[in-house]
Amino acid sequence: MDKDNLSLVLHSKGDLRLEQRPIPEPGPNDVLLQMHSVGICGSDVHYWQHGRIGDFVLKQPMILGHEAAGRVVKVGSSVTHLKPGDRVAIEPGVPREVDEFFKSGHYNLSPSIFFCATPPDDGNLCRYYKHSASFCYKLPDNVTYEEGALIEPLSVGIHACRRAGVTLGSTVFVCGADLNSDRLTKAKEIGADFLLPVKKEESPQDLAKKAERILGRMPNICIECTGVQGSIQTAIYATHSGGVVVLVGLGSEMTTVPLLNAAVREVDIRGVFRYCNTWPVAISMLASKKVNVKPLVTHRFPLEQAVQAFETTRQGVGVKVMLKCDKNDQNP
Amino acid sequence: MDKDNLSLVLHSKGDLRLEQRPIPEPGPNDVLLQMHSVGICGSDVHYWQHGRIGDFVLKQPMILGHEAAGRVVKVGSSVTHLKPGDRVAIEPGVPREVDEFFKSGHYNLSPSIFFCATPPDDGNLCRYYKHSASFCYKLPDNVTYEEGALIEPLSVGIHACRRAGVTLGSTVFVCGADLNSDRLTKAKEIGADFLLPVKKEESPQDLAKKAERILGRMPNICIECTGVQGSIQTAIYATHSGGVVVLVGLGSEMTTVPLLNAAVREVDIRGVFRYCNTWPVAISMLASKKVNVKPLVTHRFPLEQAVQAFETTRQGVGVKVMLKCDKNDQNP
Amino acid sequence: MDKDNLSLVLHSKGDLRLEQRPIPEPGPNDVLLQMHSVGICGSDVHYWQHGRIGDFVLKQPMILGHEAAGRVVKVGSSVTHLKPGDRVAIEPGVPREVDEFFKSGHYNLSPSIFFCATPPDDGNLCRYYKHSASFCYKLPDNVTYEEGALIEPLSVGIHACRRAGVTLGSTVFVCGADLNSDRLTKAKEIGADFLLPVKKEESPQDLAKKAERILGRMPNICIECTGVQGSIQTAIYATHSGGVVVLVGLGSEMTTVPLLNAAVREVDIRGVFRYCNTWPVAISMLASKKVNVKPLVTHRFPLEQAVQAFETTRQGVGVKVMLKCDKNDQNP
Amino acid sequence: MDKDNLSLVLHSKGDLRLEQRPIPEPGPNDVLLQMHSVGICGSDVHYWQHGRIGDFVLKQPMILGHEAAGRVVKVGSSVTHLKPGDRVAIEPGVPREVDEFFKSGHYNLSPSIFFCATPPDDGNLCRYYKHSASFCYKLPDNVTYEEGALIEPLSVGIHACRRAGVTLGSTVFVCGADLNSDRLTKAKEIGADFLLPVKKEESPQDLAKKAERILGRMPNICIECTGVQGSIQTAIYATHSGGVVVLVGLGSEMTTVPLLNAAVREVDIRGVFRYCNTWPVAISMLASKKVNVKPLVTHRFPLEQAVQAFETTRQGVGVKVMLKCDKNDQNP
Repeated sequence: MDKDNLSLVLHSKGDLRLEQRPIPEPGPNDVLLQMHSVGICGSDVHYWQHGRIGDFVLKQPMILGHEAAGRVVKVGSSVTHLKPGDRVAIEPGVPREVDEFFKSGHYNLSPSIFFCATPPDDGNLCRYYKHSASFCYKLPDNVTYEEGALIEPLSVGIHACRRAGVTLGSTVFVCGADLNSDRLTKAKEIGADFLLPVKKEESPQDLAKKAERILGRMPNICIECTGVQGSIQTAIYATHSGGVVVLVGLGSEMTTVPLLNAAVREVDIRGVFRYCNTWPVAISMLASKKVNVKPLVTHRFPLEQAVQAFETTRQGVGVKVMLKCDKNDQNP
Repeated sequence: MDKDNLSLVLHSKGDLRLEQRPIPEPGPNDVLLQMHSVGICGSDVHYWQHGRIGDFVLKQPMILGHEAAGRVVKVGSSVTHLKPGDRVAIEPGVPREVDEFFKSGHYNLSPSIFFCATPPDDGNLCRYYKHSASFCYKLPDNVTYEEGALIEPLSVGIHACRRAGVTLGSTVFVCGADLNSDRLTKAKEIGADFLLPVKKEESPQDLAKKAERILGRMPNICIECTGVQGSIQTAIYATHSGGVVVLVGLGSEMTTVPLLNAAVREVDIRGVFRYCNTWPVAISMLASKKVNVKPLVTHRFPLEQAVQAFETTRQGVGVKVMLKCDKNDQNP
Repeated sequence: MDKDNLSLVLHSKGDLRLEQRPIPEPGPNDVLLQMHSVGICGSDVHYWQHGRIGDFVLKQPMILGHEAAGRVVKVGSSVTHLKPGDRVAIEPGVPREVDEFFKSGHYNLSPSIFFCATPPDDGNLCRYYKHSASFCYKLPDNVTYEEGALIEPLSVGIHACRRAGVTLGSTVFVCGADLNSDRLTKAKEIGADFLLPVKKEESPQDLAKKAERILGRMPNICIECTGVQGSIQTAIYATHSGGVVVLVGLGSEMTTVPLLNAAVREVDIRGVFRYCNTWPVAISMLASKKVNVKPLVTHRFPLEQAVQAFETTRQGVGVKVMLKCDKNDQNP
Repeated sequence: MDKDNLSLVLHSKGDLRLEQRPIPEPGPNDVLLQMHSVGICGSDVHYWQHGRIGDFVLKQPMILGHEAAGRVVKVGSSVTHLKPGDRVAIEPGVPREVDEFFKSGHYNLSPSIFFCATPPDDGNLCRYYKHSASFCYKLPDNVTYEEGALIEPLSVGIHACRRAGVTLGSTVFVCGADLNSDRLTKAKEIGADFLLPVKKEESPQDLAKKAERILGRMPNICIECTGVQGSIQTAIYATHSGGVVVLVGLGSEMTTVPLLNAAVREVDIRGVFRYCNTWPVAISMLASKKVNVKPLVTHRFPLEQAVQAFETTRQGVGVKVMLKCDKNDQNP
């Protein structure tokens, strides 16, 4: 094993550096991974640009990256389900305490959870990274590393769909593919049945009516992905009585919404915080080819060009930028 | 059977009259009831004072009353589960159409539902009233007419608890027994473990902290009964991550709430619209003496003094005012 | 409208006759339908061969058929959501009473339900048939009559999947596509990922192990479609701890099963009785082309050749035999 | 701290000995407890009499006891929520691996779970015992040690009720308080509304009818606590359509049941394996005095008389025998 552990470290707001870090030693329940593919998330860019997200504030240098897949190179003494050479996807959140949330199957809500690239926890935009073996999931041969890395954003969608109760036959209205028409086109390409481009002057009630007209009925479920107040209002007005609005997008602290309208029509409002118990299902979905995430990757950069890659994401070009961390294998 | 069908009719905002109406003839699936006890609801008073509630506007004279119990005096030709002499509680909402809501067990959300004393549908503050037999429920001998009438407000609570998922061991914070200290005392009398009197100058966050301190932990569930913006905000801040806020109180059309806080802690916000499938459960609860609603009745008036009774409710004196519609039996 | 109402009537066990019946007059909540396509179900053949299924015994002549779609030719006075010319799929079960099952969204369990071609209720293998308008569902232009007729058997699958909690990513083991290898091949054609042909000498435990090996893990869900004791045992042994076995196939009254094994691994055993609330979802599934039922139709006969069609089904040739009831339109 | 760690050790079938064991040293996530009260469970007696329960076979000496409460005397270096002096109830099952069951909130189903007094894991019938701090729950001042110890059997009931969906207003039929009339009387004393003594010659169908007559309706839920075939059959016949039978009692490997009857009435059959996430709820229930378990303790013995105490349980005298492990405090 080489000694190169080039890592992308955010030192402070705006100060992103590629530098060498020591290769970590896995504990008894850990595995050491040679990183292969790591996607850049909007939150990585946000930390770079602002040094914080809400209450999470960067106070010391932190390695970025949390959409990741790699190859096991060493296993801790207690690890039995993985072995060197296994290709794995990494779930970035690992609960630190066996609290009531963990015990009841909602470990994502555990306040003391470790989470890659959320201050102060290091992420995995590096050559070598150690992680709890229980939160590394073996990839089948027909699932690529990049698909493995994309399980993280896919998990946000799976968790949102579970919280919403999406099932075969559900009529779903996703608010916020974007105002960007390229992204709307991409949404159509990978599965949307209809597109509803939004003009800023339209009222939430008007947009809700439009959604109903396009879908042929009021949707049972709205998945709101912008966090913008007007869009949340649209989601509430648009949803069928007895349905669900899921809030994926995060906006400002206080929001003005037609709560009365939601309440008397028993339209539930549910948020999501990351995800839990999604990796095994995501792997089944990818392995069975029922879901295709590959078209989402529009750009690839070697780890050495990480800053350029971040700049690409910052400019909103394309959809997903993938960093290739393995010098000897830059394949998908 | 006599010919007297004295009825309390609201002719227009502020114009409440006791007048004779013809005794109705039950259809094949109906029963004719001799009314015994009918509670006065805040909504009855609201129609009297304002002539409307939201989109429901009084346009023609309407009999008030929907918290009711009576005795079967005649059954329609197709009715098999009831017979003259049966004492019954009346569920005021009867779906008119077999639509998707009715078929899936949510008939309360059916837009065309008949509902006593919601314009234009007549209520049952009268001597004789006909109703769908399927929505009349036989009372056991150990449940009084007044308890039967109180199943309607109790149903609001049952439905809210079901929507919230309240179960044995849940920690529940009910916001809005009232600012009125008599009502807080009554809440304690009939089951509340702790009281939290609210001062207007306290912030929602402070009140949430107080609730946690009193309960010994953050409540899993908040049942918000005021509809007041600050109280809804308190409910959100107070609820444990992964918990539920149920909105029972109805406020203004738009409400400003800490939706971000709710979303990232996966605190669900759920409204209630009336109730469905609650009468049989309520009867079990009352018959088993696990729930005691009797202390809620603080005033009784014969039907002939209905206007005076309404005035009592309007002034906020006591808790529940009961109208006694049977000249020959004014017992509870 | 013509006067021809050729109908397939079962007079007694083995005595199946094509005969004229009067064209029925729709009541206020009914529609009169010109029947187009009606599939033959195993239960239709069973009544023909045995005159009974369990406690349901043919005591008077009964029209067969309950997998059906047709065209509205007349609507009752209270019907607003359908009009003459509408193409509809027919849900054969219509609750007669507003009982606790109907009110709570489980009308399939209502003991007094009307059900096409279950004694003594007539089915719809005829030219003209009247049905409750609330249980007729308009077909979109891109869904054929035959697809509409196939919603009935599809509904059995939807209801079973709902009872099982099947969702994207579930690993499902369907027991009992059949011992017949043609049917196994058809199962593969329309979506099965793996086939497990069963030899009679294999023990349930061995088959369970084989299923695990083929699937790469123990299935979360087994859907048992034979009703055969050994197959039910296999389903229990095969299912992952915390999973669900759904019993679709109906066998003998008493069954010997490894209940201890199921209990200590919290494998739930759930039956299905027909279905409820499935037609709208099925139409969405068919309209979106996510599910393709067309390959299931292997034979078509005009209504005039109904006896020959029944003979084809009785011999187990092909999969679904469709009867074409409209003389002027024998298209799918 | 003294050196006395008198422990009740089962060496082999029939060979139960009181002997000294070293006082264990808590690991970083453990607490060391001075045991106070430990109830004797039927399974403890079963290991003593038979040396095994199903696949769990005693192969080396094992300390018995798993219904326990004690006082913290030492905490591991990572423990923050407990401190010496805290009175705690002990949840005997502690998952060893972060597997799919643990992650999804069903750690009771984790095959590698540690469980007190299930071979080869030691229980806590001793003076000093170490346990995972995360599975020790602080008792409020108004809950005694014995109540704390009784949370274990209470948890079986809570988990069964959760699996059944018992809620306020449910009609529940518990099969198998026992044939023993003393136990039936105790059941009545602590909450049963009706008793149904069983005669061996009565058929399951007859008993089901009797249960319906006594309850005034078919129960929604049957909780079967005997594991006896006839009683399981009774439970199925007795349960209302759409209801649930929960299997708490464990019988023989194969059971003959009316599965067809259960399936076509959609009566679900669900087992329970121990419990999970019940201690916090049980503590709420006990602290609020909504549930009273104290009358269940009918006998108390000091730890030194453990063999005599086991003999008392073996003879079926009384209900719960409690062993008092703290020489200086033998109070409840």
